[in-house]
Amino acid sequence: MQEEFSRKFKEIGVAEFFRKNLHMLGYSGPIKSFTTIIHEYVTNALDACEEYGILPKLTIQIRDIGDSRYIVAVEDNGPGIPAEYVPKVFGSMLAGTKFHRYIQSRGQQGIGAVGAILFGQMTTGKPTKVLSSTGDEIATLFLKIDIDRNQAKVIDSSKIKNDWRGTKLVTEFEGLSYRKGEQSPYEYLRRTAISNPHATIMLSSPTGEKIKWSRTISSVPKRPQEMQPHPYGVSADDLLRMSARSDASKLGIFLKKDLSRISAKRVAELAKISKLDMNMAPAQLSYSEAQKLVKAFKKVKLMAPPTDGLMPIMEQNLERSLQDRLESKFLRVRTRKPSVFRGGIPFQIEVAVSYGGSSGRKTDNGRKMEIMRFANKAPLLFDSGACGITQAIRTIDWKRYNLGDIDSAPVTVLVNIVSPHVPYTSTGKQAVADDPDIVSEIKLAVMEVARDLKRHLAGVAREKQKHKRKNIFAKYIPEVSLALSKLTSSSEKEITTDLENIMLKRLKIDTGEQDEPEKTQKTETEPIADAQKEDSA
Amino acid sequence: MQEEFSRKFKEIGVAEFFRKNLHMLGYSGPIKSFTTIIHEYVTNALDACEEYGILPKLTIQIRDIGDSRYIVAVEDNGPGIPAEYVPKVFGSMLAGTKFHRYIQSRGQQGIGAVGAILFGQMTTGKPTKVLSSTGDEIATLFLKIDIDRNQAKVIDSSKIKNDWRGTKLVTEFEGLSYRKGEQSPYEYLRRTAISNPHATIMLSSPTGEKIKWSRTISSVPKRPQEMQPHPYGVSADDLLRMSARSDASKLGIFLKKDLSRISAKRVAELAKISKLDMNMAPAQLSYSEAQKLVKAFKKVKLMAPPTDGLMPIMEQNLERSLQDRLESKFLRVRTRKPSVFRGGIPFQIEVAVSYGGSSGRKTDNGRKMEIMRFANKAPLLFDSGACGITQAIRTIDWKRYNLGDIDSAPVTVLVNIVSPHVPYTSTGKQAVADDPDIVSEIKLAVMEVARDLKRHLAGVAREKQKHKRKNIFAKYIPEVSLALSKLTSSSEKEITTDLENIMLKRLKIDTGEQDEPEKTQKTETEPIADAQKEDSA
Repeated sequence: MQEEFSRKFKEIGVAEFFRKNLHMLGYSGPIKSFTTIIHEYVTNALDACEEYGILPKLTIQIRDIGDSRYIVAVEDNGPGIPAEYVPKVFGSMLAGTKFHRYIQSRGQQGIGAVGAILFGQMTTGKPTKVLSSTGDEIATLFLKIDIDRNQAKVIDSSKIKNDWRGTKLVTEFEGLSYRKGEQSPYEYLRRTAISNPHATIMLSSPTGEKIKWSRTISSVPKRPQEMQPHPYGVSADDLLRMSARSDASKLGIFLKKDLSRISAKRVAELAKISKLDMNMAPAQLSYSEAQKLVKAFKKVKLMAPPTDGLMPIMEQNLERSLQDRLESKFLRVRTRKPSVFRGGIPFQIEVAVSYGGSSGRKTDNGRKMEIMRFANKAPLLFDSGACGITQAIRTIDWKRYNLGDIDSAPVTVLVNIVSPHVPYTSTGKQAVADDPDIVSEIKLAVMEVARDLKRHLAGVAREKQKHKRKNIFAKYIPEVSLALSKLTSSSEKEITTDLENIMLKRLKIDTGEQDEPEKTQKTETEPIADAQKEDSA
Repeated sequence: MQEEFSRKFKEIGVAEFFRKNLHMLGYSGPIKSFTTIIHEYVTNALDACEEYGILPKLTIQIRDIGDSRYIVAVEDNGPGIPAEYVPKVFGSMLAGTKFHRYIQSRGQQGIGAVGAILFGQMTTGKPTKVLSSTGDEIATLFLKIDIDRNQAKVIDSSKIKNDWRGTKLVTEFEGLSYRKGEQSPYEYLRRTAISNPHATIMLSSPTGEKIKWSRTISSVPKRPQEMQPHPYGVSADDLLRMSARSDASKLGIFLKKDLSRISAKRVAELAKISKLDMNMAPAQLSYSEAQKLVKAFKKVKLMAPPTDGLMPIMEQNLERSLQDRLESKFLRVRTRKPSVFRGGIPFQIEVAVSYGGSSGRKTDNGRKMEIMRFANKAPLLFDSGACGITQAIRTIDWKRYNLGDIDSAPVTVLVNIVSPHVPYTSTGKQAVADDPDIVSEIKLAVMEVARDLKRHLAGVAREKQKHKRKNIFAKYIPEVSLALSKLTSSSEKEITTDLENIMLKRLKIDTGEQDEPEKTQKTETEPIADAQKEDSA
């Protein structure tokens, strides 16, 4: 029995595990796999540019080489990766710069690009070509992943002097299918351009199309900042992990340094409530002591978490971007104030509602409501039904907003959630959990801009009515003018002008500006009261 | 730049990764988390018993200790785990006896029980108590998981002489909620008892209930067997991994030994087609050579994969089990012949349709169709909508089977898929991919038994009609008898008996047996032709 057990007992590595469970990383089916690849390479590039304050310029080339095989090349003008780190960054799973930092970024797990490289290797047996330069010389490496060791095998490498800076990945894949649908690489990039108006994105598609989404703003977004977790959002287990890793010498210093909103005064209060010695070494903290601290946190009045590390797209940026891409007749954008979920995790919601132009999703008979979901500015294209964003929008009573049937309205609703800890429902990172705080913020924001849309649509209807009346009136002006001119012996032309002026004045007809998009205006019209009304309805 | 990068660059362990992504293992929300815990402990126990040919007897005790805290104890009479392996089995993720073996088992990944222990530790800070004995002495260990090292920390351990054999796990959890719904631990165990008729399962629920599902058969199921993958089901990458690990000295020997259905004659054919040297060392195989082999496989005629490693529940076992649990008025079970998906992966489908008794799911107005999904005999309670089993059943035109509205029919449809490689759609292992071969097998099987149900229901309707006519007839017998007795001067009683006999004979009325459940009969009535008809409709 013992020998049998020992013979069968094996340990496997993380790369081996994900090799067998590639669907967990988004590689399932020819369409989703394709979009996952583009997502991984593009988010890596955008995150790197953002962190180093660079205006991103991305080039994505996709070449169809037949038999469901494609070569994908993604190039950025980012900071580049020091040559000796290239094998680690692209060859080891669960290794990276983001995992332990509490920071808003698109990627989080240190798996993404490695997963795509592994998928390429598994389907074609070929290495990925990586070019990277931090400014003075380009390192070119051909990498494979050694599954058993979870590290890169460098097949070939070389260096040349050059002043280009950035990173380029070239991988060949088999088993993909390129189509221009709702969940395609094309749609992924189109939405990425919308949510990253400071980025220029170019796509050479396998069908020979060349698409360029030029940046609509040229200011560099502020760099993301690491944040300290807020005491209300940490569990006893979190605290234990953090204290074990802290370099603070005393518990009190650890609390002040590694958590936000804890001052010396608060440490004293916490000592009193928890009866813990604040001079003890943080690594000595036990689980039950951590529990006492977590309980004590709740009894102390703390400021809300700092939110300066949050980086929304910003109203004016998103507005320019959407106006440019959708040519809306009506467009309203709202970036809400930062808020907190699960007691201590900061997040912020942005929404936009766009009507007319190319808003909405094309159907056989016209256009219907389109929902664009983003998390930390990265588009979410899959698992829409399971997503808290979709649920928040669906529970809104759209009939109240003069939209008619949303299945035949040319309207786009966009929601972006930014947070150092977006609560995804799965590894695929395609759906946001329906946390009540998050759902409520989304509903408030969407309903606020939807009210402006309602007024706009009412205005459009009124103008239409007026124009109709004007046209009827105008039809009779020549006849009336002729009759009056005969009766009064005045000039028929003068009478006509007078009558036309009277008509325009009485009907208060605009001179055509109602077709211009309206600009975002700050309106603070009791959104909360209104939302509650709807909730209780 | 370089220093900054090096400061931020970190590698993390697999335990740390899953600690941050517990939802990937099924720990999300108080109900799903609870069922996941029970699932992990129970499947481990059943797999162990099955592998060692033991009739399982499981005891599950759940105690509510307030504040959403529960103590869960799961005890089996399995083979036990050698004491020195206990920390490895329950303390390290991605370590176990199942990962590299091509064998039908409930668990596969070597993560399950460790995930539950980690979840307990994270929410309560407490170790899990493990008792295990292979027969002569009980080892008791208190284990925690060292996240950074992905291994167990043994807090305390002791041994006592005893002749008990088995394993018992006791873990405390916080953040759970016990309810008796469709996705509850109770329902999980009820269905486990149905699909494992050789197991006795006892539950002490936190509400004080004591439920015992006694085994309905006492024969030990045959032990699962390791299988060799079939050449049609392996990719070039699979072949490369296998050849690197093989202890065969030559490629030809590797192919014969590590794959199924390859004889010396086939090796010669493969050598000819692929132009590969069959004497080369397997470890020397390159990806492109592996590709050549995979292409060559398709050109060689090979027998279908062996299926002797598949262990369905078996018709008579499932029938006894369901009859006992559901007290059906109609019950039909069908275990299909083994089949193959994706070219070379063997699988087998079992279905049951039960009508009446406690079949179906309770609703406010009665009962509606209930779908019970199983994979390798383990119940699937979540992600029903995304599951190929659900989809197969939903696409059947149930109106054709005299069932009326399935939302008010007391009917249970059960499907079990067994395979060494069930194609789950996610880590949660709660939904089966909608592979066309699998879906088609399910539909064929369900429609076959549904046709029997249709006949049964038609029979029931006919019997009802006859009884109605009999009753009307019987009403007039006394009057007619009296009249005839007067006319013929015969005994009225005799005439009544004669008339009744005539009536019974003419109407061919059964003497009540139509309420007995009908037994499964082998009927091979062109299921394929019928299914195609439906598909093309």
